[in-house]
Amino acid sequence: MNMEGLRNPFKVVIVTGVPGVGKTTVLSLAKERALRRGLKLKVLNFGDFMLSFAVERGLIKDRDQIRYLSLRQQLELQSQAAQAIIKESSKELGDDGVLIVDTHAVVKTSLGYLPGLPRHVVDVLKPDVIVLLEADPKEIAARQAKDSTRYRADFGGEEGVKELMEHARRAAMSSAVEAGSILSIIVNREGRADEAADRLLDLLLKV
Amino acid sequence: MNMEGLRNPFKVVIVTGVPGVGKTTVLSLAKERALRRGLKLKVLNFGDFMLSFAVERGLIKDRDQIRYLSLRQQLELQSQAAQAIIKESSKELGDDGVLIVDTHAVVKTSLGYLPGLPRHVVDVLKPDVIVLLEADPKEIAARQAKDSTRYRADFGGEEGVKELMEHARRAAMSSAVEAGSILSIIVNREGRADEAADRLLDLLLKV
Amino acid sequence: MNMEGLRNPFKVVIVTGVPGVGKTTVLSLAKERALRRGLKLKVLNFGDFMLSFAVERGLIKDRDQIRYLSLRQQLELQSQAAQAIIKESSKELGDDGVLIVDTHAVVKTSLGYLPGLPRHVVDVLKPDVIVLLEADPKEIAARQAKDSTRYRADFGGEEGVKELMEHARRAAMSSAVEAGSILSIIVNREGRADEAADRLLDLLLKV
Repeated sequence: MNMEGLRNPFKVVIVTGVPGVGKTTVLSLAKERALRRGLKLKVLNFGDFMLSFAVERGLIKDRDQIRYLSLRQQLELQSQAAQAIIKESSKELGDDGVLIVDTHAVVKTSLGYLPGLPRHVVDVLKPDVIVLLEADPKEIAARQAKDSTRYRADFGGEEGVKELMEHARRAAMSSAVEAGSILSIIVNREGRADEAADRLLDLLLKV
Repeated sequence: MNMEGLRNPFKVVIVTGVPGVGKTTVLSLAKERALRRGLKLKVLNFGDFMLSFAVERGLIKDRDQIRYLSLRQQLELQSQAAQAIIKESSKELGDDGVLIVDTHAVVKTSLGYLPGLPRHVVDVLKPDVIVLLEADPKEIAARQAKDSTRYRADFGGEEGVKELMEHARRAAMSSAVEAGSILSIIVNREGRADEAADRLLDLLLKV
Repeated sequence: MNMEGLRNPFKVVIVTGVPGVGKTTVLSLAKERALRRGLKLKVLNFGDFMLSFAVERGLIKDRDQIRYLSLRQQLELQSQAAQAIIKESSKELGDDGVLIVDTHAVVKTSLGYLPGLPRHVVDVLKPDVIVLLEADPKEIAARQAKDSTRYRADFGGEEGVKELMEHARRAAMSSAVEAGSILSIIVNREGRADEAADRLLDLLLKV
């Protein structure tokens, strides 16, 4: 079998989680520890790549406007972002490196749930592992309620978070079946981002 | 990226729902309103296309016999239906038109659950949005029980409807990940088909 | 449509189930009955094929070591196994034969859940039907606890079994959407493997 068709030379770990789950904290702790262990690691944010392409093409001016893009524009930006991420990583990572892609399994939009890892994206990213970072829906909803500058008002409280997490599980498993990826669920308990980071680190070292 | 590979020139919205959810009513209300708004809209029923191919080829004589088709015959009819639907729509709809395909995310058969939107179908339909029309399982089961001429006896009551709806959610998300489609859940509350039609109309105007 | 692209000449039924569900018993009863009915049937175990390739290439010495294979090695072995299974079946089964593949929808590994039927596998196996053999999570957990020589200690009791079964349902539906397969759920009640075998036999005769 030609493994190159199914995988990139470096390892690819996609880390997903609903807004408010604590992904930024866990990722930054895990990255710090991984670098201290000497791991050749790169962390790229999928949304940043989409945004920069959108701004470059004059479609929008800043991150807040990303929701005004049409569905088809978003689809095209997803494809461009995936390709640019792999291109950039290929320059820097050899077959001993690990790429972390920070993104979402599904995104709640005004029209419905948009898969963050559809076939046309996983066909390019070719993830070894897709991580679902999860937490207690109640804690997530509380965090969203506290910081209205960062989270949108329409997440629908605890029930809305629960439903979003269910869709994320379904979407992530579908993406994993597409790419033959491991689906790894890491729980981020309140006040214990440390432990979640350690589990992620363990995964990065073993993958 | 070649968007033509991922999408048709016109927009495609697939509307699915389990038997008894009220799909016919909601679709007809939404269609009426969309046409009044001047939307270039076409509504095609997937099963009708499958049926006409099956009759044409002498496989069966009427709709009731569709369940006696072999699995492989159904698969082939699915492919033919998808292609014919896109061909017919391409003649009438430009890039400002919307095609609604009326179908199912999964179909309960005597052998198990058959995906209504497998990869070989979504690769042709290329949906922008997949709509899951949902309702209270109790109401759906009651509607099925009332009209035995229209609904099969083996849907299994409220529990059976619940399980079918769960499978439909999983199947629809898988299809959405295949095609990079938005998954939109619209709730059809008892006696409020009006509201569900308005939500669908809103989606048709924005997609 | 070229049905050969979507299906093998013979019928393919994949039978999956979490460890402890009673798959071996049900399969052996169904096989016995099918042969008595004169069905041209072949039952192949996916893991056996992976194992023999791994041993042949000197990667491991016995079944217990299979968990020490790297993710990418497992992926490659999956592909090889799928191809070898179809090659072997093609020699023996004509278009009136049925191949049963005994495998898992997801496998719990130390890193997370590995899909047993990812796209690169179903694209080769082209299943007509994917069977999920299910049982009461409590009974499965009890069976696992009783026989520690056969089941790994880390299945996590009743809760762990429930979660694994949920992932198996999601994974199996994703695989079914990929291949356009029927998803069939057969329940194996305590002490009634007989009935489960009869349902499977019925499916084998009708597919």
